[in-house]
Amino acid sequence: MSAEEHLVAMLDELGRVSDEDGKLTRTFLSPAMRRANGLVGGWMREAGLTVREDAVGNLIGRSEGAGGRAMGAKTLLLGSHLDSVRDAGRFDGPLGVLLPFVALAELKRRGVMLPFAVEVLGFSEEEGVRFASAYLGSEGYAGKLKAATLALRDGAGVSVGDALKEFAGGTFALPKAAHRRGELLGYVEVHIEQGPVLEAKRLAVGVVSAIAGQSRFKLTWTGKAGHAGTTPMALRRDALAGAAEFTLAVEKLARGTAGLVATVGALTVSPGAANVIPGGVVHTLDVRHASDARRKAALLRLGKLAAVIARKRGLKVAWQRTQDNGAVACSPALTAQLTRSVEAVQGTSLSLVSGAGHDGVVMSALTPVAMLFVRCRDGLSHHPDEYASPRDLGIALRVMVDFLERMGQQHGP
Amino acid sequence: MSAEEHLVAMLDELGRVSDEDGKLTRTFLSPAMRRANGLVGGWMREAGLTVREDAVGNLIGRSEGAGGRAMGAKTLLLGSHLDSVRDAGRFDGPLGVLLPFVALAELKRRGVMLPFAVEVLGFSEEEGVRFASAYLGSEGYAGKLKAATLALRDGAGVSVGDALKEFAGGTFALPKAAHRRGELLGYVEVHIEQGPVLEAKRLAVGVVSAIAGQSRFKLTWTGKAGHAGTTPMALRRDALAGAAEFTLAVEKLARGTAGLVATVGALTVSPGAANVIPGGVVHTLDVRHASDARRKAALLRLGKLAAVIARKRGLKVAWQRTQDNGAVACSPALTAQLTRSVEAVQGTSLSLVSGAGHDGVVMSALTPVAMLFVRCRDGLSHHPDEYASPRDLGIALRVMVDFLERMGQQHGP
Repeated sequence: MSAEEHLVAMLDELGRVSDEDGKLTRTFLSPAMRRANGLVGGWMREAGLTVREDAVGNLIGRSEGAGGRAMGAKTLLLGSHLDSVRDAGRFDGPLGVLLPFVALAELKRRGVMLPFAVEVLGFSEEEGVRFASAYLGSEGYAGKLKAATLALRDGAGVSVGDALKEFAGGTFALPKAAHRRGELLGYVEVHIEQGPVLEAKRLAVGVVSAIAGQSRFKLTWTGKAGHAGTTPMALRRDALAGAAEFTLAVEKLARGTAGLVATVGALTVSPGAANVIPGGVVHTLDVRHASDARRKAALLRLGKLAAVIARKRGLKVAWQRTQDNGAVACSPALTAQLTRSVEAVQGTSLSLVSGAGHDGVVMSALTPVAMLFVRCRDGLSHHPDEYASPRDLGIALRVMVDFLERMGQQHGP
Repeated sequence: MSAEEHLVAMLDELGRVSDEDGKLTRTFLSPAMRRANGLVGGWMREAGLTVREDAVGNLIGRSEGAGGRAMGAKTLLLGSHLDSVRDAGRFDGPLGVLLPFVALAELKRRGVMLPFAVEVLGFSEEEGVRFASAYLGSEGYAGKLKAATLALRDGAGVSVGDALKEFAGGTFALPKAAHRRGELLGYVEVHIEQGPVLEAKRLAVGVVSAIAGQSRFKLTWTGKAGHAGTTPMALRRDALAGAAEFTLAVEKLARGTAGLVATVGALTVSPGAANVIPGGVVHTLDVRHASDARRKAALLRLGKLAAVIARKRGLKVAWQRTQDNGAVACSPALTAQLTRSVEAVQGTSLSLVSGAGHDGVVMSALTPVAMLFVRCRDGLSHHPDEYASPRDLGIALRVMVDFLERMGQQHGP
């Protein structure tokens, strides 16, 4: 079995480890997550890694460098998450955990010794399903978990703190970062793109330049409900017409601003009857850009546009901010290194902004980060039909092997 | 108590006859409808009318003309409906039943004898609440009730036919028209406007020129759902953006076409999440105009606009027709007569199109119709806050008295 076939087989087998029959669901510290850590931990050991779990349920496989545990030996972190959304696909997360140790095994097979240690990280939580709070695994590893987070409760009323105590079989204290910043070479994550850009560009892999900042709002438009048959057009204050005009303004601004994505994804009309003019509309607005300044400029512009539309139409519009995350820039040095490896394997590289959040967002507080995106069919993720081809996985694997070799040469004696 | 105060007092008392505690609801043949017929029938008798119920539960109060039941004596019909929507106001329907016999009593008080008979009609069903089919009362009176309608069932599984048999205490046969066309002078209905035009024009009453034709559709827009963060604007097929563009096109066409009203009143987005590009939208479209030709021209134009929007955006759009009623023109002669009475009482008249349907739609198949609209506060109806002022009711009453006097002079010996 080739390294690539091994990777595909493991993704398939791990994809059957689930908390729910007939679909793939693995949530923070759930029985399936414990089985997944056991399964992947076994594979890590076969690849020659020493394996442990940390206090928040992260799976950590470590391979010492050529110098062993010498003073001053540095560590490169490679990883992603092992949890999933409900009814998930089998690539989002696991790919970035399994691929690195397959690459390490391949280097070992070729007799290549790296001059630095590698930790392969399988984070216990990234999707935010169980506690509606994402990144619990990487926050624990990076020493960024906060006391307030421990108080969050799941649908059954169990708190994060209770779950962690039960996992530890006793007590739990907020963990410190697993490493000091100076001990680390960086964090590199391989992930499916979850978008259509690589497919559109006919490329197997691309390199992430930044993880976009994101603002999310709930907008409420208030007009006046009225009889659809008896209210002349000139006397209407139609909340849906106002929201429709704003939705098109959002689209127009995003289309005209390089790198901006903006979406009205959920919208409800009240009273919502065929023969009643809409008196109210509530909708979401999601705005993302790799540049925080451009995202904020876009929001300022949209705020003005909404006010103009509301004034013109005799409507009221209210904004409620529900989320606000700054952008994370990837490390120029690590990204350049990764780009060279992509060019070596694929012939050409492509620089992408990640519009979705990843563990790299949290890890960037601990160490420089870089990300490799792998093409996925139809840009689809968070769905059982999520798919990356064996050929593309093979290219990603060769990029990682090349990247580790180049890092080895760069950091070697 | 003045005639006007008597009318207000009866509207208040009838407004408390309900099938539901704490709100006004009266549906076809319900216990409250039977009590309402009893109450109003008693008032009709006090006003000097002879009272009966027909086979579909309509309340009919008849006043013979000066010539009694002579051969060739004609009958003028005045009426509206006594049923209501759920949690209704107290004017929509009852006003047009109570006001006519108050007017007849006023004429009697003044010693005015009309040369023709008058039937005051309290239709048993207009709102379509119980069987989701409107006009059962006027259809029964006009001989337009169809066998297919008898098979319709209410929420409890009772059919229209069963309910009518139970009402009759035995058998029920589809009724013929209550009168031959040649015996009738026409049908005149007084109704609250259910719209804001009279209020905007600062007029108590206006005369209806036509009841608008109405088309209703369900439109389904299909695009492609996708991740709101990772799908660039240029690669999106956003069903909501398409539906928003169409909604504005609907509004623009209606604003630019005299007498056209067009409304997108209900709209749902799927999957409907803040971070997912809308893959599908279903919405209603309601289009009304007094001219069937202009309504059809508007629909043709909207069909083309939707197709252009869909093609441009890579969407599919499907239309499903859910309702289609032609316009009903009011009788020029009766309407001119009513307009003269409005001018005499109010100083000026206003010609309005009714955007809502009324019993006159069905009655127009039997006899020429005319309608008088009465201003209602904020144009509001189908709501407990529905309100017409005593002053405006008084003006409507004086218009009806004047109208009957003029009709008497015109048709007199």
